[in-house]
Amino acid sequence: MQRYFAIEKKEKNFILSDSDLHHISNVMRMKNGDFVEVVYDHVLYKCKVCFDSSISIIFDSILPSVEDTREIVLIVPVLKEQKMDLILQKATELGVSRIIPIITERTIVKLNDKESKKIERWSRIVKEASEQCKRISVPIIDNVMNISSLNFDDGVKYVCSTRENVKNIKNVMHNILECAKMYIVVGPEGGLSLDEEKILNELGFVSISLGKRIMRVETVPLFILSILNYELME
Amino acid sequence: MQRYFAIEKKEKNFILSDSDLHHISNVMRMKNGDFVEVVYDHVLYKCKVCFDSSISIIFDSILPSVEDTREIVLIVPVLKEQKMDLILQKATELGVSRIIPIITERTIVKLNDKESKKIERWSRIVKEASEQCKRISVPIIDNVMNISSLNFDDGVKYVCSTRENVKNIKNVMHNILECAKMYIVVGPEGGLSLDEEKILNELGFVSISLGKRIMRVETVPLFILSILNYELME
Repeated sequence: MQRYFAIEKKEKNFILSDSDLHHISNVMRMKNGDFVEVVYDHVLYKCKVCFDSSISIIFDSILPSVEDTREIVLIVPVLKEQKMDLILQKATELGVSRIIPIITERTIVKLNDKESKKIERWSRIVKEASEQCKRISVPIIDNVMNISSLNFDDGVKYVCSTRENVKNIKNVMHNILECAKMYIVVGPEGGLSLDEEKILNELGFVSISLGKRIMRVETVPLFILSILNYELME
Repeated sequence: MQRYFAIEKKEKNFILSDSDLHHISNVMRMKNGDFVEVVYDHVLYKCKVCFDSSISIIFDSILPSVEDTREIVLIVPVLKEQKMDLILQKATELGVSRIIPIITERTIVKLNDKESKKIERWSRIVKEASEQCKRISVPIIDNVMNISSLNFDDGVKYVCSTRENVKNIKNVMHNILECAKMYIVVGPEGGLSLDEEKILNELGFVSISLGKRIMRVETVPLFILSILNYELME
């Protein structure tokens, strides 16, 4: 069954976005009486599609669902469109809870006045990916931040480092698994500068290595999230 | 230092492809006396670039290098260009040794007479990815095969399954780690048919699950390879 995230619930009616309604009638070409899955406020519903003068999405029943209890906050530099889109889509598939885009010294992309448009676009990508991989929550996309404002007082905090003599992710996994919330910073192409890594260390982010492979920036989040999913498998 | 794979070695001279020579002179805009890394027959060399009437790549010294001792053979359905390219590039970054493209019941892409052109294209992608992530071997791309010809008598063999009641990858990891060679089959969009999975089981491929997440086809190889890299970390 196709899944959509509702904007609002009015008694037995669910309100979907115009683009979702377009998807139902013109892309999926659904008929009167077809069923869809609708997520609203972290609850999964089975709903009937009713075509009248307009399209109504009507409550049928509540479906069982499991939500991730672990919170994973991915902090990534703003990257060129294709790489950014890939990270957003794949990180959503692999269960990320929140994504914080950051500007670093070696960030090439200039946002200028396009930040709100970008965030709108990124939010659309994670919403669609969430529907496709049947999550019951959409990852939150934060406003773009600077390194020095990454000040959080909960969870475990790590930064991916290419420096020698830092522990690898396997060595700190027991700490990660013990905690319900994790922040992880991935650097841009060319890496974070030493100063930036130092600022993060002072903010409580522990430097870790991901082993000896040379990975492109957009591979790193998928690598980390795959490992976390693996470690959390029963 | 930029890395290239040589086609041939003639005494102190390394022969590179025309596109690599173009890359050296027109993309990297190197000058006479600049150094490059050259891999030939699994050995890594430091070489000097000499511009005369043509470009020569001259031996300078042998550099230390470590090759993967573990062989990972990834068996994937032929997919649309963008997804296929992503798998080839990322699997190379994550250390795959060999990729066997297969045709399955639910494979949408039609190869017709384009197979050799496709393989040429795929080989170029893994070569470039190998240079970029500084491997000293390029993954082998096999000819396109059918499920029933996947008959190998070495290594451990697994097929990713969406069936209930199969062990997950974590439960079989000790078997994977004990063996120096692993074959892994990933299904197409919509999965392998039950018949196809049965044929593979009869050929010795054990069905495993990758957990509860719903992943797109192109995410699956990256997921598995990330986990393997993680498990092999020291």
